[in-house]
Parts: sequence; structure tokens; C-alpha cells
Amino acid sequence: MTTTAAQPSGPAVLKLSRSAAQLTADLVDIESVSGDEARIADAVEAAVGRHASLSVRRLGNVVIARTELGRPERVVLAGHLDTVPIAGNLPSRLAEGRLHGCGASDMKSGVALQLRVLELVGSGTLKPAVDLTWLFYDCEEVEAARNGLNRVAAEHPDVLRADLAILLEPTNGAVEGGCQGTMRAQLSIAGVRAHSARSWLGSNAIHAAAPVLQRLADYRAREVEVEGLTYREGLNAVFIEGGVAGNVIPDGCLITVNYRFAPDRSEAEAEAHLRSVFSGFELAVLDSAPAARPGLDRPLAQRAVAALGGEVAAKLGWTDVARFSALGIPALNFSPGDPNLAHRADESVELAQLERCEQLLLGFLRSGSESGTN
Amino acid sequence: MTTTAAQPSGPAVLKLSRSAAQLTADLVDIESVSGDEARIADAVEAAVGRHASLSVRRLGNVVIARTELGRPERVVLAGHLDTVPIAGNLPSRLAEGRLHGCGASDMKSGVALQLRVLELVGSGTLKPAVDLTWLFYDCEEVEAARNGLNRVAAEHPDVLRADLAILLEPTNGAVEGGCQGTMRAQLSIAGVRAHSARSWLGSNAIHAAAPVLQRLADYRAREVEVEGLTYREGLNAVFIEGGVAGNVIPDGCLITVNYRFAPDRSEAEAEAHLRSVFSGFELAVLDSAPAARPGLDRPLAQRAVAALGGEVAAKLGWTDVARFSALGIPALNFSPGDPNLAHRADESVELAQLERCEQLLLGFLRSGSESGTN
Repeated sequence: MTTTAAQPSGPAVLKLSRSAAQLTADLVDIESVSGDEARIADAVEAAVGRHASLSVRRLGNVVIARTELGRPERVVLAGHLDTVPIAGNLPSRLAEGRLHGCGASDMKSGVALQLRVLELVGSGTLKPAVDLTWLFYDCEEVEAARNGLNRVAAEHPDVLRADLAILLEPTNGAVEGGCQGTMRAQLSIAGVRAHSARSWLGSNAIHAAAPVLQRLADYRAREVEVEGLTYREGLNAVFIEGGVAGNVIPDGCLITVNYRFAPDRSEAEAEAHLRSVFSGFELAVLDSAPAARPGLDRPLAQRAVAALGGEVAAKLGWTDVARFSALGIPALNFSPGDPNLAHRADESVELAQLERCEQLLLGFLRSGSESGTN
Repeated sequence: MTTTAAQPSGPAVLKLSRSAAQLTADLVDIESVSGDEARIADAVEAAVGRHASLSVRRLGNVVIARTELGRPERVVLAGHLDTVPIAGNLPSRLAEGRLHGCGASDMKSGVALQLRVLELVGSGTLKPAVDLTWLFYDCEEVEAARNGLNRVAAEHPDVLRADLAILLEPTNGAVEGGCQGTMRAQLSIAGVRAHSARSWLGSNAIHAAAPVLQRLADYRAREVEVEGLTYREGLNAVFIEGGVAGNVIPDGCLITVNYRFAPDRSEAEAEAHLRSVFSGFELAVLDSAPAARPGLDRPLAQRAVAALGGEVAAKLGWTDVARFSALGIPALNFSPGDPNLAHRADESVELAQLERCEQLLLGFLRSGSESGTN
């Protein structure tokens, strides 16, 4: 699978007529660590541009393709082109029915499925029951401010408009609905410095952190049902630091907590909850991202769930589906990647799962086309 | 007071006939940050060597002078030549009855008193009731392995032999007996990493630190009377750290504690106490130094206390007196320096206190000389 290994100096070429497995390998072999996606975006834009029936647009390293078939409903297929840093896991390698390599799971196998659907629709082989928008974007693996989908949502929200979004983030072939919100906050505990030989002259900020840690240890996270899906929350210290010198009573202790919250809470409600849990302590929110309600009560979303396997679970994690949810668009996570292998040096994707997901996705897009407007 | 300011390129000259205040200024003006004491040690050695009645020895940057008067008792006067780094506080400066400058308090005013006594004894002006050993040493302000007194104690313990040691560390003109021991230990708390969106798959090491901090917060330190002096102990966290990433359940948390213990406990007993306080947690001793019993029950020590002011308090801190105590030699801290000004940019010493301490010290050394063997 390494015959089309990336030529780091020249443009990369993608042949969309190849199988999803071959396309995944080709995509993996184009290095695209966050911030360095120009080459892969060029390759995607060039390949997509060969289909005159699609309108194609480029915004930075985001590539957007659309059908304009006049269907009453529109589905977005969205995936990011970037990966975490290479970990000695390039070029791609096929072994025992799995394709190995950086991004194989998260999420170049998902991008390969986007491109397979695009090739079949663009060439007229598949007549979809819905209009389609493909979003290929950059910088998902880094801070939100750089995220390509975030940028497009802020500057060109019309591009995202649809009746359903399918984000091809790893779900191991399952359908996962909505996503948890996430908020990080810092607790600052103050003390008074003194020489540790005369500690009674000071006030130890690390000791004063005891009740904060005890509240965290005692905390019982909620399990919340939202639209039939169960979201399990979590509240955890992710960092603690304090100390001045080996002979000084510390005058400060900082604890960073991460709260993962169910879609029944807004960011404001999440913050209010944290302030209640840590009442009496100084708390500052560092960053947050809203949860996404699954939004699966709408007919198109229900058709998607049925076609993609019939079962749906809550996404226990934050993904870009929240950006669609914020625009009122129901959004699902669905792809062959294994979330437990994401960001690992031994990242891989099972080719049988890839093929199964391709068939389910094509089946969904084809479903109802006999009663469609085409 | 800056007329003899250091000539950084040539040798420094000390005139021991000057007053203690002038000598302090001269010593302050010879820069001698730890590790860079050759120039001040040369100056001390040259000045001391002018007295043929004293035997003088040089071991690295340690200068040792001795009388051999055949007295039945011997007193050591010990002081370090080094300072913490200069903080824009050179050259020395006289203002409102105080001499300002790096080391003025800790402890060049003490060294000036050592040299004043040496000049009076060496010239025959003062006939002391005891034999005397002067120890001027390097690297007190840095790690124990570099400490000049520590090195001499290990390699030439005979040099330290005496019936009483007076260490001229800052005590604000009081007599302080013995010193506390100090032990640092690290508590390691383990957990299991997991993504913070699925925190129930992991085990949070920071949360598991709650009982350690609670035990520290609840800890009631002992006040222990040893040979009539009250030592107040302390047990404190001085560092805490834990955390992997903002979205990862931390698998480790390290807490460093500092235990200051009274001279009724050995280092082994101090460690056993820590293991008892933190039972159930993994603990490793990082470093320790023994406490020093005041040893003030001996007649010479009692005469010293009476002559130096009549009052004695426990030293709440660790000093090199412990090195004498370890050899069975009673040791006192006594000098005009203010411990609360040590290591500060605005370090200074009160000249009236300096003169008072000089008179008390000379009075003690003279005391009993009428009944002495000379």
C-alpha cells in the first residue's frame, strides 16, 4: 500500500477511482500534521475539481464541494485532513487486514469514505436521495482558534447549512450522537510564604487545597439521558502545582479541573455548577466548548441512524459535531476508525470495518432515492 | 566605609587593627559568592598569618588558626566566608547606624568579630581563658556536599575538636542553642491514565492525594523541651505536582514534604514518624540533616551563655552547629546579624549590636582567665 508514498517535494495526486482502503493509504502517505495541510488540501481540491457536476470552493486549507440537485434535504459529510505529529508510523503499511499509519484511524479512513462517496456521486454512479456538502478541513487536532471548521462556521456559516451532518470521526463503525461539553477551570489557593523552619509564621497553600481534592474525590458524576441517549459526565483535576523552594512554605497552589458535561447543560450552567461545587474557592474558567444535543428526533436523522446500523450511543467526548449543533443542525459521528487507537504510534484501521462503513453510508445516501425528486 | 572597596583584579588586603564595623565593611566589599571564595580566603589567610603565635592552616578555601596556650578547654569560633549572590547591594554603605551590603548580616559581621578576637589574642592584648580555634570556611550557602566545614569535619575531624563551638550565624545578638533537624521526603501517588471524557476508565492520582493533604492540614506539630529549650516542630508540603494534559486523567501526583524536627529525635526516628503519619502511601526520603542538642549542661557552655547575655533560646532552623553536635561538641549560635534580613537585597547589620556582641564575646573569652592556667 506504499506504492503511492508521498513525494515530499512535489504535489501529491489522489485517484478517487481507487478503493476506500487504497485511498486511505494514499491519504496517510501524504503527511499532514496540523498546520502543514496545504499539500493534502491541494491534492483533495485537484481530485474533487475533476467533477464538473460539483461546485468546489477553497477557503484557506478548507476544501468544500457541493451538489446542487434540488433535493429537499442536504447532508454534510465532514472530516479533518490533519493528524497529530508523526510517530515513526509512516509510510502506511498493510498487515493482517489492517492498514497501519499516522491518521489511519483518526481520520484519514473517514476522509477516504468522504472521497469515495464524492467520486460515485460526481461521476453519476450514485444518485443520492439528498443534496450533499463535503467539508475537508484543517487544524482539528490543535486549539479551537485554528480549527478550519470553526473558522468557516464563523466567517461563512452558510457553507455549513444542512439538515444533517455526519462527522467521520472514529466511532469504530457505530453511530454516536451529539457530544459532551468540556470546560476547564483553574482554582487558585493562596497562602503566606515563610521559612519552613518557622512554618507557623506562614500559611500553607498546598495544605489548604485538601478540601478541593476531597470534593473531587467525593464527587458523583451524573448520568443524564438526553433524547434517549445516556451521557456520563466527569469532573477531574488534570493538573496541580504548587511550591517555591524546599525550605519555603508555599504561598500558592493551582488546580486545573476538566468538567465534561451532558448536552442538557449550557456552558453557563456548567460554570454555575463548578462554582457551586467549589464554593468558597477562587475559580476562573480557562476555556470551554458547548455540548451538542443529538437532535435525532428529526426524520432525516432517524433514517440515517436506521441505515447506519440501527443503534446509536452517546458520544462521550467532544467533537466538531458541536459546531453543527450550535447552528441547529443534527449531527452524528460515524466512521470505521477506532477512537482507542487515535493518536497512538500503532494507530491502524480494520479494512473489513472500512468496507462495512462504506456500504452502510452508501446505503443511507441511496435510501429513499426511488421516492426522491430526481 | 568603602575606601577599601575590593580591587577585583588584585589581592584584597584586610587590616585587622581596624574596628569591627570597618572590618565588616572591608569583608562585605570583597565579593565572595559561594564557589568564588579564593580571594577572601587569601586575604584572611594573609592577615591571620602575620601573628606568629598562631598556627595557621589552609585546606582548600578553609582557613584555620589555632592557639596552643595549654588551656584545659578549647573554644571554636566558626564562620563562613561566602554569601548568596550579589543583589545590587555592593559596595557596602553606612546609613543611620547600620552597615548595608551583601553578607552584612549573614555573616560578614560575624567573621569580623572572629577576626577582631584573633587580632587581640594574636597580638597578646587579650589573654583568653581558653584555647581558641578559628574556622573560616566556604560554601555554606549551597548544598551540603560543597560545605567547607562539612569537608573538614569528614576529612580532618581533629581540626574541629573543642569543648564548645560558637557559630557566628545571625541571631540578632541572642544566644541560640542547638538546631532543628530537617528531612525532605517525597510521597508518590499512582493512578491510571484515561481520556478525561471517559474518566471512569482511569484512576485520578491527584484526587487520591486528598487524604495526604488532609493529614498535613490536620497535623499538630510538637513543641518539645530539650535541655530547657523549647523546639517547635513543623511538617509541611513544600511542593506538589501532577498532570499530563488538559484532557487526560493524571496517573501520578508527587508531594514533597519538609519535616523540621526537635533534637530529641534522630534522623531514623524522624523518618519513622513520617512513615507513620503517611502510612498507606509510598514515601521516599530525599535528604536530611540531623538536629543538634544544645549540650548546654556542661560548665563551659553555661559560662558562655551567662557571659553572652544570660538568656538562651532554641534555634528554629538548621545551622552548621549540627556538625559540631554530631562530634559531641556543644555548640551555640551567636552574632549581631539579623536572621530576618539574611539573603535579602536590603541586608544590613546594626553597628550598635555589632559593638555589643564584640564586648560580650571578649568578656566571655576573658572570663575566668584570672583563674586560668596562664
